Amino acid sequence: MDKFILHEEPVSANCYKIRLTAALLGIPLQRRIYSILKGETRTAEFLETVSSFGRVPVLQIGDSTFLPESNAACFYLAEAAASTATAASASSSSSSSSPPQATTSLIPKDALQRAEMLRWMFFEQNQHEVNIATLRFWVHVIGGQNLDGSRRAQIVGKIAAGEQALDCMEDHLAKSHHGWFVGDTISLADICLFAYTHIAGDAGFDLSRWPSILKWCDQVKQVQGYIPMS
Amino acid sequence: MDKFILHEEPVSANCYKIRLTAALLGIPLQRRIYSILKGETRTAEFLETVSSFGRVPVLQIGDSTFLPESNAACFYLAEAAASTATAASASSSSSSSSPPQATTSLIPKDALQRAEMLRWMFFEQNQHEVNIATLRFWVHVIGGQNLDGSRRAQIVGKIAAGEQALDCMEDHLAKSHHGWFVGDTISLADICLFAYTHIAGDAGFDLSRWPSILKWCDQVKQVQGYIPMS
Repeated sequence: MDKFILHEEPVSANCYKIRLTAALLGIPLQRRIYSILKGETRTAEFLETVSSFGRVPVLQIGDSTFLPESNAACFYLAEAAASTATAASASSSSSSSSPPQATTSLIPKDALQRAEMLRWMFFEQNQHEVNIATLRFWVHVIGGQNLDGSRRAQIVGKIAAGEQALDCMEDHLAKSHHGWFVGDTISLADICLFAYTHIAGDAGFDLSRWPSILKWCDQVKQVQGYIPMS
Repeated sequence: MDKFILHEEPVSANCYKIRLTAALLGIPLQRRIYSILKGETRTAEFLETVSSFGRVPVLQIGDSTFLPESNAACFYLAEAAASTATAASASSSSSSSSPPQATTSLIPKDALQRAEMLRWMFFEQNQHEVNIATLRFWVHVIGGQNLDGSRRAQIVGKIAAGEQALDCMEDHLAKSHHGWFVGDTISLADICLFAYTHIAGDAGFDLSRWPSILKWCDQVKQVQGYIPMS
């Protein structure tokens, strides 16, 4: 498997998603830390070598491939682990050597479940992250007193939209037989939604209003290989 | 292959994405039309049978499976077409009958290209759709004079963020050897980004500022099987 380097900012749960995915899959990940507030993702060197968009996370694959977008990076790591496990299994069965170590598969094999996993990952980027993660960044990282008028004007709308996203998750989890978003085990849908949900309190959301979400958060934390955000 | 019904609103380019994907793949799609402005996606019947979230598009697969999120629905259709083509090809080679009809493959076979395709699809939902599609809905569908204060306060920020998303696309396409987002042919990344980009003029964006995007739009329209939005 290629060497992976995560270019990241520790306060970002988009970055944490990738570390959590790698940890559950047992994939080693080197880290390069940047401070967003200090502008370290906007330097000429970063823009030229890591990403011309000036954002993290970026997953570096080998020496010269750079993949932005957290959920795409999680997908790539999960496919890489699955493909390595398949190759190891084939090699093991032909050579009769010891069986490969168990690898958690984070992408369902069933096509419909795979699409349902992606459905929640797109929901996360379109209706959850843009509200809950943005609010958290504004009030928890930048600080409410430092916000300009344009951002202040958006707070009420983002709180309402964030609550609506949490309501959708609660509704789905309450009906889920196994307490996961798709099927009977953890998938990338859970990891990507967990990232900003479990710290939604930083953005002012009181998770005790959503009991199925709280239970699901505890379930994620019990998965073998789980690492906390910090 | 299952029977597909698209529950949709014709003014939504999120819905159009799915129709364009199905058209390029040669997949028949029945349509059920709803008016968002008349509240037809919020009726008790819709919430109970189609989606408790009260949104379109929803792709109905067979009689009882309902898949929300436009990009996930495109992914499901493209995987279904690829799997049908593989089965037809295997059956054809074993029976030596005539070869199957060509099916456009919209998901790259290479794992890195597949992740890069998803990278642009997540970008679309997180940085493009939330700005350009939302602005278009506000000024073109609802009408600028009908917006409340909270929405009006967000317009300047959404114009800036929409321009930034178009700059990212322009930068990438200008460097692309084949004029596509990933690899040397059209993929779901192009379809999903095309949907709201080619009508960004409705939201007030003058696409002549982004020449590589204009050229790419023309290239999409030349693909065999292309259908216009309306």
